[in-house]
Amino acid sequence: MTRKLRMGMVGGGTGSFIGDVHRKAASIDGRIELVCGAFSSTAEKSIASGKALNLDHNRCYGSFEEMILKEKALPEEVRMDFVAIVTPNHMHFPPTKMALENGFHVVCDKPVTLTLEEAIALQELIKSSGKLFALTHNYTGNSMVKQARAMVANGELGTIRKVQVQYLQGWLSTTVETTDNKQAAWRTDPKKSGIGGALGDIGTHAENLMAYITGLEIHEIAADLGTFGAGRVLDDDGNMLIRMTNGAKGSISISQIALGEENNLAIKVYGTKGSLEWHQENPNELITRWLDEPKKVYTPNGNGLHPEALNVSRIPAGHPEGYLEAFATIYKNFAEHLTAINNGNIIEKPDYPSIEEGVRGMKFIYAAVKSDANNGTWTTL
Amino acid sequence: MTRKLRMGMVGGGTGSFIGDVHRKAASIDGRIELVCGAFSSTAEKSIASGKALNLDHNRCYGSFEEMILKEKALPEEVRMDFVAIVTPNHMHFPPTKMALENGFHVVCDKPVTLTLEEAIALQELIKSSGKLFALTHNYTGNSMVKQARAMVANGELGTIRKVQVQYLQGWLSTTVETTDNKQAAWRTDPKKSGIGGALGDIGTHAENLMAYITGLEIHEIAADLGTFGAGRVLDDDGNMLIRMTNGAKGSISISQIALGEENNLAIKVYGTKGSLEWHQENPNELITRWLDEPKKVYTPNGNGLHPEALNVSRIPAGHPEGYLEAFATIYKNFAEHLTAINNGNIIEKPDYPSIEEGVRGMKFIYAAVKSDANNGTWTTL
Amino acid sequence: MTRKLRMGMVGGGTGSFIGDVHRKAASIDGRIELVCGAFSSTAEKSIASGKALNLDHNRCYGSFEEMILKEKALPEEVRMDFVAIVTPNHMHFPPTKMALENGFHVVCDKPVTLTLEEAIALQELIKSSGKLFALTHNYTGNSMVKQARAMVANGELGTIRKVQVQYLQGWLSTTVETTDNKQAAWRTDPKKSGIGGALGDIGTHAENLMAYITGLEIHEIAADLGTFGAGRVLDDDGNMLIRMTNGAKGSISISQIALGEENNLAIKVYGTKGSLEWHQENPNELITRWLDEPKKVYTPNGNGLHPEALNVSRIPAGHPEGYLEAFATIYKNFAEHLTAINNGNIIEKPDYPSIEEGVRGMKFIYAAVKSDANNGTWTTL
Amino acid sequence: MTRKLRMGMVGGGTGSFIGDVHRKAASIDGRIELVCGAFSSTAEKSIASGKALNLDHNRCYGSFEEMILKEKALPEEVRMDFVAIVTPNHMHFPPTKMALENGFHVVCDKPVTLTLEEAIALQELIKSSGKLFALTHNYTGNSMVKQARAMVANGELGTIRKVQVQYLQGWLSTTVETTDNKQAAWRTDPKKSGIGGALGDIGTHAENLMAYITGLEIHEIAADLGTFGAGRVLDDDGNMLIRMTNGAKGSISISQIALGEENNLAIKVYGTKGSLEWHQENPNELITRWLDEPKKVYTPNGNGLHPEALNVSRIPAGHPEGYLEAFATIYKNFAEHLTAINNGNIIEKPDYPSIEEGVRGMKFIYAAVKSDANNGTWTTL
Repeated sequence: MTRKLRMGMVGGGTGSFIGDVHRKAASIDGRIELVCGAFSSTAEKSIASGKALNLDHNRCYGSFEEMILKEKALPEEVRMDFVAIVTPNHMHFPPTKMALENGFHVVCDKPVTLTLEEAIALQELIKSSGKLFALTHNYTGNSMVKQARAMVANGELGTIRKVQVQYLQGWLSTTVETTDNKQAAWRTDPKKSGIGGALGDIGTHAENLMAYITGLEIHEIAADLGTFGAGRVLDDDGNMLIRMTNGAKGSISISQIALGEENNLAIKVYGTKGSLEWHQENPNELITRWLDEPKKVYTPNGNGLHPEALNVSRIPAGHPEGYLEAFATIYKNFAEHLTAINNGNIIEKPDYPSIEEGVRGMKFIYAAVKSDANNGTWTTL
Repeated sequence: MTRKLRMGMVGGGTGSFIGDVHRKAASIDGRIELVCGAFSSTAEKSIASGKALNLDHNRCYGSFEEMILKEKALPEEVRMDFVAIVTPNHMHFPPTKMALENGFHVVCDKPVTLTLEEAIALQELIKSSGKLFALTHNYTGNSMVKQARAMVANGELGTIRKVQVQYLQGWLSTTVETTDNKQAAWRTDPKKSGIGGALGDIGTHAENLMAYITGLEIHEIAADLGTFGAGRVLDDDGNMLIRMTNGAKGSISISQIALGEENNLAIKVYGTKGSLEWHQENPNELITRWLDEPKKVYTPNGNGLHPEALNVSRIPAGHPEGYLEAFATIYKNFAEHLTAINNGNIIEKPDYPSIEEGVRGMKFIYAAVKSDANNGTWTTL
Repeated sequence: MTRKLRMGMVGGGTGSFIGDVHRKAASIDGRIELVCGAFSSTAEKSIASGKALNLDHNRCYGSFEEMILKEKALPEEVRMDFVAIVTPNHMHFPPTKMALENGFHVVCDKPVTLTLEEAIALQELIKSSGKLFALTHNYTGNSMVKQARAMVANGELGTIRKVQVQYLQGWLSTTVETTDNKQAAWRTDPKKSGIGGALGDIGTHAENLMAYITGLEIHEIAADLGTFGAGRVLDDDGNMLIRMTNGAKGSISISQIALGEENNLAIKVYGTKGSLEWHQENPNELITRWLDEPKKVYTPNGNGLHPEALNVSRIPAGHPEGYLEAFATIYKNFAEHLTAINNGNIIEKPDYPSIEEGVRGMKFIYAAVKSDANNGTWTTL
Repeated sequence: MTRKLRMGMVGGGTGSFIGDVHRKAASIDGRIELVCGAFSSTAEKSIASGKALNLDHNRCYGSFEEMILKEKALPEEVRMDFVAIVTPNHMHFPPTKMALENGFHVVCDKPVTLTLEEAIALQELIKSSGKLFALTHNYTGNSMVKQARAMVANGELGTIRKVQVQYLQGWLSTTVETTDNKQAAWRTDPKKSGIGGALGDIGTHAENLMAYITGLEIHEIAADLGTFGAGRVLDDDGNMLIRMTNGAKGSISISQIALGEENNLAIKVYGTKGSLEWHQENPNELITRWLDEPKKVYTPNGNGLHPEALNVSRIPAGHPEGYLEAFATIYKNFAEHLTAINNGNIIEKPDYPSIEEGVRGMKFIYAAVKSDANNGTWTTL
């Protein structure tokens, strides 16, 4: 059975950036359809959003609580299969918890929760619920990121010695949160964002990308965070040293005040046999360097790829795939896993981020903030 | 009313490249849903394809004739709104004609028909039918292509003097059509492809991109085509000189034996005040050069864009959009036009390629083939 | 004996662009010293230029005739070994002829002469004189160009099928020759430049680069030249189709009105096994593509190079070499050849352009002009 | 008077990398001639090297002491004007000291001395001697680096908030110092290199480039150095956090075990109004980003440059200049300064690195090593 999975959404009302991204990403591969939503804080707004999305009026709910309870009451062949949670961070845990407790699977935006405590609690909840949980660290859905991971896992780079990750943006160079910019407003508000600003918004992506590609985790971190925007309380910039579990060393640089940078997420990994480099803004190439051979550049669906990378491409080589396609890969892999389970099949190692990645991301935020508070003292995750 | 438009598809069965592209592109923006199809040459295969797409069994038809007639018999609120035709070239005209004659709008892959005669006949048919017709010259859907067009139209480049377009691929470097490669087989078969090989498959894209950006048309052409693959009868390579309607000069280079090239469509336009350059494989930047200022590089949703370019972006700057998104823009603009008409509204200049572009593309093919047959004599379109 | 060779210069007075380039290029490798010159059309100016160059007052001559005769009268261990001719085109042949006839070797800027007749006459003269003659097609001095040539010669690309060369500049986008721009004035003057404008100035470089890398020559050409600058008589733009001696096809595009382009010389070569791409403005990488392997990018002194490329680099990998270094390689190879001869040694195939390349360049100009005059008719060289 | 300046060299015998670089760089602009040298540790080798350079046999000395004393005894119009010191670090101070004390100006390779104590002593010596001293931090000689510096100084970027510098090489990825690699041998030997390995060899370049462009200095540093090569005692890798004198934050990453990297020196500077980015391996462009304008890319001799950048270019836009040319700019500016002094003229702010930069570089090394020894504690310079 390959029926489309039915998705309900929490958050993502008209004008939301990330809600629309989730909807597009979920739809690209034809495996998922949006059937209901609690898109906004009021029923009125939620209904307006749902109407614009051609949803059934009866399934545009005024709150996530209402949505979960009413959907649960629907016939199995009608009700939503899973909830996609695309709200600000402080609203990740409550709907996730309630959805799981009422038998729904969950796809949730990152960082996983507002606090580390919530993340750990959620880990238990997921385990006991037996439901699936996907965390949309979307950049790992790129074909070239899969290739990078496969090359490292295959030993082609030898032992990893050095790692550099950066995630640089400039959109908070001025204090846009004081203007009518909702995206900036909640991200700079600790009540909605948590103890990390840029750390949570983009730092967790950087940490996740590095761990996904290298298979290594950060053992300890020394952080120097910055808060450059006048009146801000959360970090909008950070420079960090890291030591990995295998002895490799490296650095992470994040910023939302790197003026003019758009979405410059990039990684370099250096091993004893080879090295690699990937840039999110130019995602369709993976640059590799070798001891005795010239630089080799891989492309999606191009020559010399591992199956993990080939599986991701939707179109022939030379036809660029971007942000939405990578995001869609998270949804596709989640959908395949859920469909397999629905059909009584088993997927051994489903390839999408989940709660472990979420907890690790929160530990990263907390360790960086703690290190910074201690003037950069090395702090273990 | 913003209901989703209902799409029926001709061609694009399981394993097809372009059928899947059309489906994904049509779905991204949530304006269109696939409701039926005649996906293959046999009812059995068509039903299998439709099933894999979660379609209603009753709406998987064995032929396009059956689809058109049976859909026409359905209630208005159920039947398809338009037909998407994604078959090889020789199967563009018959279903388009029948669809139009039975009251359906059409989206069709390029080149528009097998022959120039068909194209001209179709132009009449469309006119008399009053139905909409979109031709998927997808590359014009890129944000940076819109920006390029707007800059030229706005006079920022001054008078255009020189144009260079290239579309280079390498996938026919070896005679893969003799192996089990369906894509190669029909494209190298004049009965299915027409009198142009690479000319029709990629040359028409090059011609269309140039005309779209510059607002100029080719006045005459001198072509030197090549057929390098052993046993081939159609061109797999071509070098062409062009003279534009305004006196500008230029060249077009196309190839499917440019070994190692993936999908290297690129254009350079030089004016008396400024110049521009765009590369499809790196679509998220537009390079411009100026008499007295440094090189400026535009990015989707970045600084300094015209509304035409801003309107196209779905996500913030730095989040790359690619082939599918540009393709989707054709569908989106078509859907907006059709919805406007359904609602009694008017869109003055809908922004998607149609039959005029299709006829021009056929004239381009025919003039190039004629010039080549006359050893490169200048030939007017 | 590795004494420095003594160079006399014709042309290249203060303010000259190319004279200074020759002097710097000749000096980099420490094999050549400038000892005398007839730098300008008057003795006064010539002396002023020589003085600024710290030359002996007695060896700053008022004319090339004076220089050749007086230097010839000097003792062998003092007098110049060779003459470097860096004048406009119409002043290439007379001093070259006189230098050869008086026993001096010659290095000459390109194109080799004002007319094809002169070039053929010069070919005879050189042969009968037994003197060396180097033509400064400087771009072939790049390490990555040597690598490209070696790869083709070694059969790594298989049979060459398609070639693209372009040389695009924008500095004549406006009619700067009517302002106080000496460089533009003589280049747009047929009495000084010959029958080719951009053709001679940059077209010959494009032709030479292609022939050097591929080992192929142009069999016939179809040219569409442009003269866009108001009041100009020579071409400032050209689009050309070419057919090579081995059946390969291709195109050449040149321009000096490609606004904003600086010195964009680039080549692509496609074979049956592999392909390559090189850009003069980014000379320190050679991009190659392959049937079954990922794209490989070579760098000077990097991995995987042929000896011909390794020999050229002066500094370790990653330390960019540019225009002057490539130019210097022509002088270095010329100096090594001359030193070998002086020492009674033999160099089998000295690697610098000479009169054959010069004659071929003139034939290229003449064929292109003739084809253009015949509205693009195919014209053999 | 514009006579050529006479240079004597200490170190740089046959087979040396950097000696040849200095000689080529000194010669390019025709302002300097090599007249003597103590090229090697034995008279025999030194004479052989000098002979290969066409030097007078009598001026090939067996030691720097001999050279300085004998040159001093020569007539003023013959003897060398200055000494270029191109030995390993431990041999910088002794010849510099003796040269200064005997009335010779000095050009010296970096880092300035073996120890910080020597650097401070040298600072006094230079002051008291009244002689000129140039330190070859060659990368500041690039046109685009001058442009970057001028833009920052001119306030175009606003207040600098964030700085990233990296200098990545891979040539010590394996323990080549145990093979017959002289360059590696002395650089990994603390007796010859000092307390810094990569820190001294490339870290000081990174520090200098940053200070030159931004006009800011490092206030304190937190360093995590690595020694990955088996048996090595000095750092071959380092990740550092920095805090600048104006409150800006940033990071420095250096490595000689970043496998496959050639000479990847790069810098990013983010201000409140604009940002810039420069890469040494692609030195002929400067990328800038702005609050409200598209990305602008500057090129040498291109549009929009400050005089400081224009002054540096030797050839028209589009003709790439590289490592040697930038290096030559240091020599050129030094030569102009010395010539001015010789002629009784004054240059207010000569533009080449000197002892202040040298002392700062040594403080950088010492602070980084101290911080690393204290597990990354913030350490002031």
